Amino acid sequence: MRTLRIAMAQVNPTVGDLAGNRDRIVDSIDRARKAGADIVALPELAVTGYPPEDLLLKPQFVADNLRTLREVQQATKGITAVVGFVDRNDCLYNAAAVLHNGEHRYTYHKILLPNYGVFDEYRYFRPGNRYPLVVLKGVTLGVNICEDIWFSEGPTRTQALAGAEVIVNINASPYHKGKGRERLKMLAGRARENNIIVSYTNAVGSQDELVFDGQSMLIDGKGKLIASGNQFAEELLITDVRVPDRKLVAPRRNGPHFESIDAIILSEKPGPKKKPLIGRKIVKPLPVNEEVYCALVLGTRDYLRKNGFRTAVIGLSGGVDSSLVAAVAAAALGKEHVVGVFMPSQFSSKESRDDALGLAKNLGIHFLEIPIQQTFDAYLNTLRCEFARTRQDVTEENLQARIRGNLLMALSNKFGWLVLTTGNKSEMSVGYATLYGDMAGGFAVIKDVPKTLVYGICRCINRISAKAVIPDRVLTKAPTAELRPNQKDSDSLPVYSVLDPILKAYVEEDKPFREILKMGFDRKTVEQVIRLVDSSEYKRRQAPPGVKITPRGLGKDRRFPITNRYKSY
Amino acid sequence: MRTLRIAMAQVNPTVGDLAGNRDRIVDSIDRARKAGADIVALPELAVTGYPPEDLLLKPQFVADNLRTLREVQQATKGITAVVGFVDRNDCLYNAAAVLHNGEHRYTYHKILLPNYGVFDEYRYFRPGNRYPLVVLKGVTLGVNICEDIWFSEGPTRTQALAGAEVIVNINASPYHKGKGRERLKMLAGRARENNIIVSYTNAVGSQDELVFDGQSMLIDGKGKLIASGNQFAEELLITDVRVPDRKLVAPRRNGPHFESIDAIILSEKPGPKKKPLIGRKIVKPLPVNEEVYCALVLGTRDYLRKNGFRTAVIGLSGGVDSSLVAAVAAAALGKEHVVGVFMPSQFSSKESRDDALGLAKNLGIHFLEIPIQQTFDAYLNTLRCEFARTRQDVTEENLQARIRGNLLMALSNKFGWLVLTTGNKSEMSVGYATLYGDMAGGFAVIKDVPKTLVYGICRCINRISAKAVIPDRVLTKAPTAELRPNQKDSDSLPVYSVLDPILKAYVEEDKPFREILKMGFDRKTVEQVIRLVDSSEYKRRQAPPGVKITPRGLGKDRRFPITNRYKSY
Repeated sequence: MRTLRIAMAQVNPTVGDLAGNRDRIVDSIDRARKAGADIVALPELAVTGYPPEDLLLKPQFVADNLRTLREVQQATKGITAVVGFVDRNDCLYNAAAVLHNGEHRYTYHKILLPNYGVFDEYRYFRPGNRYPLVVLKGVTLGVNICEDIWFSEGPTRTQALAGAEVIVNINASPYHKGKGRERLKMLAGRARENNIIVSYTNAVGSQDELVFDGQSMLIDGKGKLIASGNQFAEELLITDVRVPDRKLVAPRRNGPHFESIDAIILSEKPGPKKKPLIGRKIVKPLPVNEEVYCALVLGTRDYLRKNGFRTAVIGLSGGVDSSLVAAVAAAALGKEHVVGVFMPSQFSSKESRDDALGLAKNLGIHFLEIPIQQTFDAYLNTLRCEFARTRQDVTEENLQARIRGNLLMALSNKFGWLVLTTGNKSEMSVGYATLYGDMAGGFAVIKDVPKTLVYGICRCINRISAKAVIPDRVLTKAPTAELRPNQKDSDSLPVYSVLDPILKAYVEEDKPFREILKMGFDRKTVEQVIRLVDSSEYKRRQAPPGVKITPRGLGKDRRFPITNRYKSY
Repeated sequence: MRTLRIAMAQVNPTVGDLAGNRDRIVDSIDRARKAGADIVALPELAVTGYPPEDLLLKPQFVADNLRTLREVQQATKGITAVVGFVDRNDCLYNAAAVLHNGEHRYTYHKILLPNYGVFDEYRYFRPGNRYPLVVLKGVTLGVNICEDIWFSEGPTRTQALAGAEVIVNINASPYHKGKGRERLKMLAGRARENNIIVSYTNAVGSQDELVFDGQSMLIDGKGKLIASGNQFAEELLITDVRVPDRKLVAPRRNGPHFESIDAIILSEKPGPKKKPLIGRKIVKPLPVNEEVYCALVLGTRDYLRKNGFRTAVIGLSGGVDSSLVAAVAAAALGKEHVVGVFMPSQFSSKESRDDALGLAKNLGIHFLEIPIQQTFDAYLNTLRCEFARTRQDVTEENLQARIRGNLLMALSNKFGWLVLTTGNKSEMSVGYATLYGDMAGGFAVIKDVPKTLVYGICRCINRISAKAVIPDRVLTKAPTAELRPNQKDSDSLPVYSVLDPILKAYVEEDKPFREILKMGFDRKTVEQVIRLVDSSEYKRRQAPPGVKITPRGLGKDRRFPITNRYKSY
């Protein structure tokens, strides 16, 4: 039995911040070395941040990333590091550098490039075709990247058959609800199939719509989880991994792709005995609503911090959506950095004001009240000739929402606060939102959270806090936009317990019309929902980014034409 | 010498309109048959429209497209047609059906899939690997699709070496300025290299940001253009093509990929003699400014028409941008379907009003005047407590722009008009525009037109019209946003003759900082421009779509992170 001390550095890089990322990487390497680690793994594209998108088309950016990697290389005296970066020859590669004792010993090129969902890797990268086996202290490691480990017949199999004992897989794997369980199941399968130890290092932090949730994992050859890292927080997870002795240690020159195996011998003999580390850390995954809540908090915190904002401003309506967004913002930024604004009209109820104020008090955030009636009257007066002989309709409702959007943007402009919008996924899917009104803002915290889940997360917040931070009435009263007398969401939309499963089937799962009907929904209702989804694409196209928390959100993973005459019903 | 009568049907499909596209395709087939054509070529993905984007992820959509193709097949009695559609087995293919005399004889799968710029074909399609040779009336045809013909070593070479005499290449090739010349040069090269006749059929019409410009071409084996179709208009271009006799007529079973050649024998003998067609049509390409103008007109017309709008509303400032947009709209929709709205404030000059009104009169469009002062005052009064002890800044400027945006949107909501925004590429690149203000609207006609080109197109319009449709003063006065006293664009930005070449180098060509300096620009100016471009990504993300007219626009062909700390200077 040989022992390898593996450090998995789940760091939080920022896209484009090459110097900052270098410092974070080098700090992890230094700490790993001090802890006696033999090898430290950093996330996929740790040098550039993930995904760098069209920055990759700038030759200067790629050159600067290569220079940064050389600086990292200097910091690997006395240790081995696997670091994600962008490699370049005639074209670009999503690459992992094997750095050892100050030298750059090997460059692995990711073989399986995802080009679906939020991923566009074929836009930038060419796939690799070489399979490295790295011998370190007598243990044979197969290095690969993210997607490479998701397929049974992929690089992991090739490397295992050629003699790898431990797979060092580095990732920038975006979060969605329950993704950790999917990963664990997949990794355990991959480990068992190949009787191989798997070290899975994931990034943490958020980039525009994507949250990287950490949860790095070590799995033994039987598929058992032997260590795991924090969800949603940086960590250097160090574990002594016991590698069973085998008869064959050196790479085998057979099996599939054997002509494409590269052997890199760093050190063949086990190092001197170390004092073993005591215990192994296994982090119990959060319950699902709390997990989503934490993703929203991290996504919001990182979006503001990485874009240079300290304070958020939110329109509070007294409803459940703005209450949740305010709670997330307070957790993300600190209550002193959140401003709630109640903007009443003639249609606002006393209950709404009480609930908005109650929530602000409970959270301890700033509270402003700015009425919209005078401005609304000015608009109507200005338009009286044009609107003569017309009837009140959605125009007047949208005007109110847009005045509120303008007031929030005015506060944003004047004081440098970022406006957080409060639309949920159900509303955004059917277009029940006003462009330039409640959709106006820099970040749409819950745009991928269906309304029914909004309630679940609010209840979870109250449970965690052991008090009704979000006032009970907010969770029980009927949802309303309060843009005309006695308005209820249910006047325009199916109730959310019906709407949300139809949306999941249509928007997230692409189910055909007939299959959605078979789920037991009324034909007219399903037709209405599909029509609303299809006809509101133009609104979503102009929406701010927000945290992706489902397998298919409303951002880069949904690329629908606006001009679209297809009718599926 | 054999003669083949080739019909090239540059039709205008609509994405998702399967029944409508079928009717258009069948109509072309019918007309081609009546004209005695042996073969008629329809554009790439003519059945679905291009690009269908994530509609392709809906199994029902793909099934409906296959059903539609079968309907087209029924219409091919007595003729041969090559029709673009989506094929499916385990995965999807960008495909061309060879339909002959009511039968579906062969399915070609596009081999070279573009996944750069605006293209995402690897997201949906698997590449093909079979090379068809279709023998029709004794002439051997190589069928392939779009990108397949752009590379010397691609399918065209393989097919030519195996015996193809004519390449039938079908396209949905997006327009940019001067693209026609690039295509002609490429096609002539491909024809000469392989001593092969090339029939290049392109789609026409617009889909969201993309314009397809038609300009179908026939090139002889010496690389000479022998026929070409309209720019920006539908057409059935029918040409008698004389194919020189060769010793080898049947497909050769050698050359590269010879094991992947498929031979489809439709008819080996030349058909009965026909009365030859008289003359060949060669369309002289438009001068470049006029070409861009026509692209804007077609893009605007199709966006409104395909999305069910008849009338556009535009905020007229008396400046050059809104003047151009109004002129484009009048040409696209008819003057009676365009409403210009002048929205003065205390900062609006009399000249601005005169120029806006003069333009509206010249174009014959409707003209409204709606002042914003009363609403502006209401906002300021509402915010007086919050803004106490602050100084006037961009907040007050943005408020004015946002009131104007709200007024236009109110007219849009009330009367069903689409708001056209008026920002040009120079402004959109540096973020010199107000989110939810002048950026509010459904379609951004000139978002890819640099300011210097805006002037060029305006002059071209005046030249074509042989009168100053766009008032002379509009073309000569200094650009201003009129949001504070005596404001000029040049207070905030370099003059456009300096700004535009820097933007072209940085935004369109990804040139490194040092190379831009070498072009002779001042370091501070270049730094300022880069900083403005980088920091305004969040605005562009919320902008409406607009017509792409450069090789790299600000839409799907630009995928920059918002969160981005990279500094290239």
